[in-house]
Amino acid sequence: MADRTHLQIGSLIFAEIDQSDLTGPFEVLSRIPGSTYHVIAKKKAPLRDACGLILTPEKTFSEVGRLDLLHIPGGPGQEALMDDEETLSFIRQKAANARYVFSVCTGALILGAAGLLKDRKATTHWAAFHLLKYFGAIPVDARVVIDGDLISTAGVTAGLDGALRAVALLCGEHKAQEIQLGIQYAPDPPFHSGSPESAPPEVVKAVRAAYEPLAAARLLTARRIGAKLNLEDPEQQGC
Amino acid sequence: MADRTHLQIGSLIFAEIDQSDLTGPFEVLSRIPGSTYHVIAKKKAPLRDACGLILTPEKTFSEVGRLDLLHIPGGPGQEALMDDEETLSFIRQKAANARYVFSVCTGALILGAAGLLKDRKATTHWAAFHLLKYFGAIPVDARVVIDGDLISTAGVTAGLDGALRAVALLCGEHKAQEIQLGIQYAPDPPFHSGSPESAPPEVVKAVRAAYEPLAAARLLTARRIGAKLNLEDPEQQGC
Repeated sequence: MADRTHLQIGSLIFAEIDQSDLTGPFEVLSRIPGSTYHVIAKKKAPLRDACGLILTPEKTFSEVGRLDLLHIPGGPGQEALMDDEETLSFIRQKAANARYVFSVCTGALILGAAGLLKDRKATTHWAAFHLLKYFGAIPVDARVVIDGDLISTAGVTAGLDGALRAVALLCGEHKAQEIQLGIQYAPDPPFHSGSPESAPPEVVKAVRAAYEPLAAARLLTARRIGAKLNLEDPEQQGC
Repeated sequence: MADRTHLQIGSLIFAEIDQSDLTGPFEVLSRIPGSTYHVIAKKKAPLRDACGLILTPEKTFSEVGRLDLLHIPGGPGQEALMDDEETLSFIRQKAANARYVFSVCTGALILGAAGLLKDRKATTHWAAFHLLKYFGAIPVDARVVIDGDLISTAGVTAGLDGALRAVALLCGEHKAQEIQLGIQYAPDPPFHSGSPESAPPEVVKAVRAAYEPLAAARLLTARRIGAKLNLEDPEQQGC
């Protein structure tokens, strides 16, 4: 029989991922004693993150066994996966047997396209938050949302907070605290600009404008995929 | 003439780096508009971080021109670089012409071995903080320390805070705030365990014990390199 005390952790990677959505959680989760970390992609070839960093997967879909934790990062490349049946089918299959499914940033939208957010509490990057409803999710505006076996986080750097919560669930709080101390995670951002609520209005305006083309594409995709999944269009519902 | 408004940013990578020391700052610095990011190593071959993640450099030492920001990450692999004259010489040469030198975690010790910490205020990972004095540095127990053109940070995740400070210095606070909002950096650690002062005593004890073998090796190296650089041994000085 497989050793169920040895944890199997797997992260999906893809072209134009946001690398921190992988590397933040990797920093935390790879430090779990008695665990194996699988960096997984459709093809075993190096790929680039949205800002150009080269990441190299070591397992393809067919090479991955049961996972205790299935981690789905986000980033602009998430758009291309929303219709990729091979990827969505891999996610559904691994999620069905995982102890936890853990999305970071717009990785939640990929879970949505796989049909895994229906009637589940979830969050995502602030600029994509309004899209969760198209996948039947119950949007919760928090940095980390835990709904049963589903852990989802807000954008990019929230993956660190979510990964520490995941370690606490898998191995207890003491181990999570040890890892936090090892990575000296006592954050001290120099500005109060980490959320649209706290950032100066002109900063929010500039960042929203930069996101606009991607946001428009994501809205169209979310509505189309939601319809394909036979989820109700929230805009057609009464209040 | 070279375009001095286009920023050249370079990170040194090496075997057994702590990948977050690279990828945290990369997430921030690679978002600077009008910049080029160079991931640099002695040889242009993929290498593994201390927890096994594959990282791939794209430039060797001889392929790198003037840098505006020279970024030196840390991690256990820093030990092997402390005597590597080719690497230390590259660092000295690039630092001499850079606008800022930016160390994360035990990257500061590499700068120390290159002779760049003498009489400079600096910090590093809490478990290596007591070693700064062997390199003639003025240790400052803060998350980010800025002394003229030298930016140094505490361990691992402090690279994010340091990188945002670097963006503010290079491009102004507005741009740093935009980047902070883009990566939704409104951290919310689930535990108060990010520093030896805040972590539960039994957590500090466990993590110190795990670091012990590496800490002993680092102490020997720091004393030896300090002596080689003709820096005074702090233990021989009166108070």
